[in-house]
Amino acid sequence: MSANSFGRLFTVTTFGESHGPAIGCVIDGCPPGIALAAGDFAHDLARRATGKSRHTSQRHEADEVEILSGVYEGRTTGTPIALLIRNTDARSKDYDRIVEQFRPGHADYTYWQKYGLRDPRGGGRSSARETTMRVAAGVVAKRWLAEKFSIRVRAHVAQIGDVRPHAFDWNAVEANPFFWPDASQVGELEAFMDALRKSGDSIGARIDAIADNVPPGWGEPIYGKLDAEIAAAMMSINAVKGVEIGAGFASVMQKGSEHRDEMTREGFLGNQAGGILGGISSGQAIRCSVAFKPTSSLRLPARGLDVQGNEVEVVTTGRHDPCVGLRSVPICEAMLALVLMDQALRHRAQCGDVGDVTPRIPAGRP
Amino acid sequence: MSANSFGRLFTVTTFGESHGPAIGCVIDGCPPGIALAAGDFAHDLARRATGKSRHTSQRHEADEVEILSGVYEGRTTGTPIALLIRNTDARSKDYDRIVEQFRPGHADYTYWQKYGLRDPRGGGRSSARETTMRVAAGVVAKRWLAEKFSIRVRAHVAQIGDVRPHAFDWNAVEANPFFWPDASQVGELEAFMDALRKSGDSIGARIDAIADNVPPGWGEPIYGKLDAEIAAAMMSINAVKGVEIGAGFASVMQKGSEHRDEMTREGFLGNQAGGILGGISSGQAIRCSVAFKPTSSLRLPARGLDVQGNEVEVVTTGRHDPCVGLRSVPICEAMLALVLMDQALRHRAQCGDVGDVTPRIPAGRP
Amino acid sequence: MSANSFGRLFTVTTFGESHGPAIGCVIDGCPPGIALAAGDFAHDLARRATGKSRHTSQRHEADEVEILSGVYEGRTTGTPIALLIRNTDARSKDYDRIVEQFRPGHADYTYWQKYGLRDPRGGGRSSARETTMRVAAGVVAKRWLAEKFSIRVRAHVAQIGDVRPHAFDWNAVEANPFFWPDASQVGELEAFMDALRKSGDSIGARIDAIADNVPPGWGEPIYGKLDAEIAAAMMSINAVKGVEIGAGFASVMQKGSEHRDEMTREGFLGNQAGGILGGISSGQAIRCSVAFKPTSSLRLPARGLDVQGNEVEVVTTGRHDPCVGLRSVPICEAMLALVLMDQALRHRAQCGDVGDVTPRIPAGRP
Amino acid sequence: MSANSFGRLFTVTTFGESHGPAIGCVIDGCPPGIALAAGDFAHDLARRATGKSRHTSQRHEADEVEILSGVYEGRTTGTPIALLIRNTDARSKDYDRIVEQFRPGHADYTYWQKYGLRDPRGGGRSSARETTMRVAAGVVAKRWLAEKFSIRVRAHVAQIGDVRPHAFDWNAVEANPFFWPDASQVGELEAFMDALRKSGDSIGARIDAIADNVPPGWGEPIYGKLDAEIAAAMMSINAVKGVEIGAGFASVMQKGSEHRDEMTREGFLGNQAGGILGGISSGQAIRCSVAFKPTSSLRLPARGLDVQGNEVEVVTTGRHDPCVGLRSVPICEAMLALVLMDQALRHRAQCGDVGDVTPRIPAGRP
Repeated sequence: MSANSFGRLFTVTTFGESHGPAIGCVIDGCPPGIALAAGDFAHDLARRATGKSRHTSQRHEADEVEILSGVYEGRTTGTPIALLIRNTDARSKDYDRIVEQFRPGHADYTYWQKYGLRDPRGGGRSSARETTMRVAAGVVAKRWLAEKFSIRVRAHVAQIGDVRPHAFDWNAVEANPFFWPDASQVGELEAFMDALRKSGDSIGARIDAIADNVPPGWGEPIYGKLDAEIAAAMMSINAVKGVEIGAGFASVMQKGSEHRDEMTREGFLGNQAGGILGGISSGQAIRCSVAFKPTSSLRLPARGLDVQGNEVEVVTTGRHDPCVGLRSVPICEAMLALVLMDQALRHRAQCGDVGDVTPRIPAGRP
Repeated sequence: MSANSFGRLFTVTTFGESHGPAIGCVIDGCPPGIALAAGDFAHDLARRATGKSRHTSQRHEADEVEILSGVYEGRTTGTPIALLIRNTDARSKDYDRIVEQFRPGHADYTYWQKYGLRDPRGGGRSSARETTMRVAAGVVAKRWLAEKFSIRVRAHVAQIGDVRPHAFDWNAVEANPFFWPDASQVGELEAFMDALRKSGDSIGARIDAIADNVPPGWGEPIYGKLDAEIAAAMMSINAVKGVEIGAGFASVMQKGSEHRDEMTREGFLGNQAGGILGGISSGQAIRCSVAFKPTSSLRLPARGLDVQGNEVEVVTTGRHDPCVGLRSVPICEAMLALVLMDQALRHRAQCGDVGDVTPRIPAGRP
Repeated sequence: MSANSFGRLFTVTTFGESHGPAIGCVIDGCPPGIALAAGDFAHDLARRATGKSRHTSQRHEADEVEILSGVYEGRTTGTPIALLIRNTDARSKDYDRIVEQFRPGHADYTYWQKYGLRDPRGGGRSSARETTMRVAAGVVAKRWLAEKFSIRVRAHVAQIGDVRPHAFDWNAVEANPFFWPDASQVGELEAFMDALRKSGDSIGARIDAIADNVPPGWGEPIYGKLDAEIAAAMMSINAVKGVEIGAGFASVMQKGSEHRDEMTREGFLGNQAGGILGGISSGQAIRCSVAFKPTSSLRLPARGLDVQGNEVEVVTTGRHDPCVGLRSVPICEAMLALVLMDQALRHRAQCGDVGDVTPRIPAGRP
Repeated sequence: MSANSFGRLFTVTTFGESHGPAIGCVIDGCPPGIALAAGDFAHDLARRATGKSRHTSQRHEADEVEILSGVYEGRTTGTPIALLIRNTDARSKDYDRIVEQFRPGHADYTYWQKYGLRDPRGGGRSSARETTMRVAAGVVAKRWLAEKFSIRVRAHVAQIGDVRPHAFDWNAVEANPFFWPDASQVGELEAFMDALRKSGDSIGARIDAIADNVPPGWGEPIYGKLDAEIAAAMMSINAVKGVEIGAGFASVMQKGSEHRDEMTREGFLGNQAGGILGGISSGQAIRCSVAFKPTSSLRLPARGLDVQGNEVEVVTTGRHDPCVGLRSVPICEAMLALVLMDQALRHRAQCGDVGDVTPRIPAGRP
């Protein structure tokens, strides 16, 4: 599998630079017969899009998907599905200065060191624009998982700076620009974000992603464990610095008697495990948590270097997100869905001969 | 790559069950000409071994490595290196009861659901015994990284329950059974662990792993990012529930002006990034943190099910670690070394034509 | 690696159907710094194109390549290179009848059995139109191999039906529509092909592909042998039924004393091996031979079935090649170049530490 | 997938040198629940073994298989199956001379060039001893294919030098040391081989391998086509120089009206295709043909070089096969079975949702 491909059997290969002519992806290994049309991508792409509110980058992309192959008369055919989105609002002028500069906290310097040259326009390949195609591919995976297994993959913002939700309501999540599960805090967050934007600074965020109704048995020990692949999937998203499954880092301070999820005929009595034991799904909800760093593109000046090695003051004037985590909810969902879809296919490849296995324990507490 | 293989070019395939006749691995893609002898594995295997102190499981394995192939006259030949360790102290009797039970917090139930049958002796394939071969393979990777790039891969315990080090000294780490960087706390930890063992309970731990002298440019965007592969590598270790790179989850509460590591001619002014930007090494120290859950094998009874679906009281009487994190230091080192070795080979495959790239920024603050 | 991807490190993923909106590919893992422009593909695409002479299908495609990503200021950047060609002369009307029919000797029936549905327009994904993108990707590989190693990858038609060349001249090959190495036979071949076309029938062909100046040492035993990968590469081309390396099937009748290529300081005394020993290049010319079957799309009626299972008479009226081998010369070159490029990268990944190895035997006789 | 691994989902990794302590393999991705015992390998290993008759190498290996992992209470568990065979009759003394020599027609020189060093004892890794483990792994694949799909994978010698069978009887094949389908020719072959052995020379051979009852739909276009993977599988066997599917190179001289296999409700009217159309099985018998070169290890002297670059006379005095094709029958079967098993798993991964597809054409003529 090449480095711009994700997934072993349901394989998504993405391409495209932030300010190049287009971005796109090829989905290979997709089961045939799934209903698919160009309009199906709009909802999730809009959730990821910039410029929806004043709290995200003001780049306005149409994000119109063209299906180039792999679909015939509205159904996937099993051949590679190529999706294409033309870039329409790429203002490379904003980046004139950074052509010659390595911005601190960015991939400018490391791409330069790796390849000896780089496409500096808008961050080139290292831009979060690439995640658009993850979301697009995730739409196909989500649909199949939902139709075949009633799996629901959802995510929400769980922390911005030191603000945490006081209450939890899935209905609230999609009703505010912060994907925040507590409607009562939206005003507070707007004020927080407005002040932050004015200050020219940025802030980190935590996203929680959950998949319900995942059957037990998915995940490939030892090096294709479900949690290992979720960790890689999430850590591959721009700006991510940490991933937790279930109790995550809290388990460092737990005792075994506290952490282990006891089992009864009625279901598991807890879900510290996050729905995964030994790298295999248990039938409980899959739960993971992802840490997004604050973006390094700030109006506030910082010390950096230029390509000649001179020290320079770096100031970003282009369009940027004060909290990149905000738009990451559909991206986290997509990556979780892609992992699950791939594992579902792998599971039936190896274990398709295994019939219904008893006893099956109900999911129990989420 | 099959699910029991790790690495794309430097590929380690492990096999073996906890109480089967043997465990082993095949290392494929190893560069030729590396000096290697059976005795080279002893040091790290001893660091990982059980039964060194009263604080770890009392299983005593000789862990004698036989090199079956791939080495001729003391040098690797470039052909697959097979390593074999016979199991010598596998007391399956201890596990008689669990043959019929699903232990809470263990992989018993999920293996059963996936495969429809399982080898229950000592946890079978899901036992941490498998990690022995990771450590063995890591010895080869560490050696090559050290000889060719002066890379040093080290790890230490950074937290046990809520105990954190007060001071930091690499020399202390290998001088106590807790791989603890502050010698002054060893007495406290011994008391803590003794009390824990007597209580029949267990505790979580956090391990920090660091690689120094990694050149800039390693890591393959987008889905083979260095941090993504480290995350998968660590999460694939038994009992791991979380992985952080650099600032990790602390970055959720950071501002961008705080997080971004400024650059000067003398080096980076910080290392919140953990040595990785855009999925590529920056030349700074690679830093990651790993959360280990407390083992679920306890003398304290818990509610579980048997294979007929009856509710049972589960009590573990076999030999177990009250803190599995303690023996995980060489495992984390090995996994980090395996990722780096694989990425080093991949980097020179694609970018071997890229000469010395200027300007190169010194590592600066760790 | 997904099934529509070729190569482990220099990975080409193709997509697109014969009569869909476009065909394209993504080249991942390409070394950075290679000069590349949209016009560079024209020469080889024209060599592969239909409608150049009356002896090939009369479909006329512009085959204009758009570079969507991976190139900045005329150089490859190391990020995925996406190439797109819009289909402009897809007359699906010609295929109205075959929507409901399984043509004998075609993939219609097997796609139907595999996927349960298919895109029947022009053969959909199973059309040789797909090979356009192999040729495009091959252009990049050929360039790198030529610039870095002076490797020259060439092919020619070596047999049409029972006609074989009487003489051999590389200069002749590109000077006639049959890629034929003996100019004196061109008239005979034109008459042969004209008669064939009038008869409504088709004919098979043999293509020889040769790579000069390949350094010794390329190829990965045991399952990534150079010859094994060439065999797979060639057999993956539409209509191919056989592959030989060096002496090929003639070696069945050879004695060992005849087959083994003796070695002297001046070079090898023969090349029965086709430049490969033990799956590794020897420094001699790499030589392989490929058998193309006659196309099954004929004006002559044949017995077939329709999708309801009724027996039908199948007659092809669309545009087709009476000898598909004719246009396969650049395709065979491309596949050989792709294998070599991928192996070159893999070789330096594992064996980049191995310096100049002595003694080195000159190539000797071709 | 590493270079010593074969198969994407049913993955076999082999290791071991001809004169090292052992050879072995790891089978990963095997479905759980298959009955398996150490004795199950004996039959096919004996068919491959040397020293059965005076017509093969006189090396006598016990070939006793130890199952190290992956089997519990006589059933595969879905975890990696490690198989080990100790080498017992490795007379490295026979090879003393070749330590310093590159034998013509052997991999000595190419391994040296690739790795800069080599294990010269008995050819090291390049020895056909490696194929023992292919045969062992093939036993598992054959069993599953037979039990689940009634697939029968068989092979026979189809040509030795210019001797071809006059009649065909599967029952004869296993009843003579030449795996020859015409019992009436056994005397002739014995005389031929005796004379050859006395002359100190060797001869090539052709093997035909056939799989019956393969369901339609297996094979992954475009680059994982069934025929492409068979070609790679066969070409990866030591001494193979050519592979044909169905009509193979004969199709070069065929007309389309002759080659295309017409279809009726009663079945296909021919099998020029060898059971594969568009890279996907058609439900007909899978047929392929493999060319084995004559071994280059002869008592007859040849010109070669030593490792210092001096010209030397090379004479082989060790134990060798005058016709390596003779023992290749079970190897070809194993490789065909491994390809089919892997493709079967891949097919149900992607197309497990596709139900019974009508119309299904009977296999018809073999």
